[in-house]
Amino acid sequence: MTTLRDHDHGDHGDHGERPEEPAGRRTLPVSDREQQVLDRIDRARRRAPRVREDRITMSHGSGGKATHTLIEAVFLSAFRNPLLDPLEDAADLRLPAARAAFTTDSYVVSPLFFPGGDIGDLAVNGTVNDLSVTGATPLYLSAGFILEEGFPVADLVRLTESMRKAAAEAGVRIVTGDTKVVQRGKADGCYINTAGVGVFERDVTLGVARSRPGDAIIVSGPVGDHGITIMLARGELDIEADVRSDTAPLNGLIAGLLDAVPVPGLRAMRDATRGGVATILNEIATAAQAGVLVSEGDIPVRDEVRGASELLGIDPMYVACEGRLVAVVDDAYADHAVAALRAQPLGEQAAVIGHVTAEQPGIVRLKTAFGGTRIVDMLVGDPLPRIC
Amino acid sequence: MTTLRDHDHGDHGDHGERPEEPAGRRTLPVSDREQQVLDRIDRARRRAPRVREDRITMSHGSGGKATHTLIEAVFLSAFRNPLLDPLEDAADLRLPAARAAFTTDSYVVSPLFFPGGDIGDLAVNGTVNDLSVTGATPLYLSAGFILEEGFPVADLVRLTESMRKAAAEAGVRIVTGDTKVVQRGKADGCYINTAGVGVFERDVTLGVARSRPGDAIIVSGPVGDHGITIMLARGELDIEADVRSDTAPLNGLIAGLLDAVPVPGLRAMRDATRGGVATILNEIATAAQAGVLVSEGDIPVRDEVRGASELLGIDPMYVACEGRLVAVVDDAYADHAVAALRAQPLGEQAAVIGHVTAEQPGIVRLKTAFGGTRIVDMLVGDPLPRIC
Repeated sequence: MTTLRDHDHGDHGDHGERPEEPAGRRTLPVSDREQQVLDRIDRARRRAPRVREDRITMSHGSGGKATHTLIEAVFLSAFRNPLLDPLEDAADLRLPAARAAFTTDSYVVSPLFFPGGDIGDLAVNGTVNDLSVTGATPLYLSAGFILEEGFPVADLVRLTESMRKAAAEAGVRIVTGDTKVVQRGKADGCYINTAGVGVFERDVTLGVARSRPGDAIIVSGPVGDHGITIMLARGELDIEADVRSDTAPLNGLIAGLLDAVPVPGLRAMRDATRGGVATILNEIATAAQAGVLVSEGDIPVRDEVRGASELLGIDPMYVACEGRLVAVVDDAYADHAVAALRAQPLGEQAAVIGHVTAEQPGIVRLKTAFGGTRIVDMLVGDPLPRIC
Repeated sequence: MTTLRDHDHGDHGDHGERPEEPAGRRTLPVSDREQQVLDRIDRARRRAPRVREDRITMSHGSGGKATHTLIEAVFLSAFRNPLLDPLEDAADLRLPAARAAFTTDSYVVSPLFFPGGDIGDLAVNGTVNDLSVTGATPLYLSAGFILEEGFPVADLVRLTESMRKAAAEAGVRIVTGDTKVVQRGKADGCYINTAGVGVFERDVTLGVARSRPGDAIIVSGPVGDHGITIMLARGELDIEADVRSDTAPLNGLIAGLLDAVPVPGLRAMRDATRGGVATILNEIATAAQAGVLVSEGDIPVRDEVRGASELLGIDPMYVACEGRLVAVVDDAYADHAVAALRAQPLGEQAAVIGHVTAEQPGIVRLKTAFGGTRIVDMLVGDPLPRIC
């Protein structure tokens, strides 16, 4: 759990500790400067501690009193840390390496709350994962909110609490943010953008273009859970299934893989979000100008997800995951990589699903359960809009 | 001005060409690796070079073929650079200093196009300015688009072209991005989030909390131009005035100020956006627990802006600027600071508008043109919604 106290070190000194320490514990020394920051925030808190309105108003986007109250009562309350608290125009980071990763994603998922997660933890985990798959260690996130006038403040509090928990679990801090409010009918409750900065503690350079014929393609677990969960959570379909989003931070799983498989044996990692595993396979084939051949029977899919997909007429290979890794590794390291993934709970069902081939460059082929082969093209159209 | 060439470090070889150079011109050496990247992109371009639709469809947010085409034909075409082009999940940055600044802002301005600018250059300049006022040199931006189904592709091309130009002028690169599409009625054409990373090339730490009684408060030019321009551009008011947004990158102006006024003589800088100069003065008073006393007659306001403000019943001190700096400096350096600002076109009308005081901590007071004094409080409500 992230609290200010846990991050309370010298002049921005060690950002290294894991934020999941309990909130009440105050064991670390506090510098004069940090105490000043804390005192200032505490004073501001005493003056304007809570949002009186039940719903977001245009005033919350004015930059004035209502905005300040919202920031202090909701965002600082959830994300509090010494880098965020001064509320200057940008956070001041110390980076332990000169090579950094930088990414962004906007989240427009509908509904905002769903089995297994909500837009808040999705927004944290998604950006943590985009940093992690490059081989970087995620450290800092920004959070930009676009709120629709009338959005319930209680929902905002709930999803910022999810963000806080997700950030703590992934060991990252939300250090800078922004809030805009638009009129009713100009958004859909709440959109969140997160950008992330990580550092390369290891000397790795990964990328799907590095894939070579013969390389093994691995997925870290069952595919399609997130997308099917969202579709069913919309309640527009008369289908019930016991599914939940797989939203999770992959940085721990990836650190284990990086330990087990030396680069350049590990060629590339991607997290299979929008467009699913099928899209990543196509990106591999295109970037590497090689073929990809995977076996339908080797791709892990939960029974509930397979059943719902069939009813929806959707191939689970195209369905978004939010906690699944696709890795390309030199085939010599394939068993090693699968073992490293299976050693962690998030990777228990990791499997080799196919290989990169010299034949059919640019094309992804699937060996079906019936022994045939079909081409798996990029998604045309959008069968699953606003899945993330 | 910072240019790409100045940031040419590490083994990404030459990220050095200025983004504003025509695509055909190739005067710098290209490493084998970069040539591979460019060749790959060129191949992809030949296959899918243009968006056939006139308007954004839900498919453009699917992560599939339409998304890839949009990215290649619009975003890569505008922002092309070797850090962005690989289209991996995160950009791989080399940072020339271990201390970095990180910020984010979402832009929801309405209308999207207005005299003097559009949401595109606003989104670049705003984030460049948020980095610059911390004393950092802005280097890299992310761009996250939330598009409404039906948004004209031509408008998207126009505003990405504005972003390209603004990034080139500020010497920054757009290195990572994301696009989401929501259904009609769930947004308002286009929202843009930019996050930014800069590095501290100078050993400065600034912040409004560092302000001390006696310090001079300086603005770099006339206030309120942006906000009034947006209000009039909406066409809902029967007022015409020759005003245009002041949207501009402040990093050049700020570099000049940092050269002229040694820290700690320079206490803090802020760019006066939402909430205007009045909000910044209140932030100074609150963070420093000091008073602020400014003179109405010393605050530069264009006649057209003053006239329109009077008709609208709005105090220009609360109206957003997008290219104006507020600086707090030790009074001994005030003349020096004003001279440094006036030496550049963006700062020609820089002026001392008042001082930090020991009296009335937490309160901002204004000496009116009539010799009286009134309190300038934080904005309550939002007289100018969606100004940025």
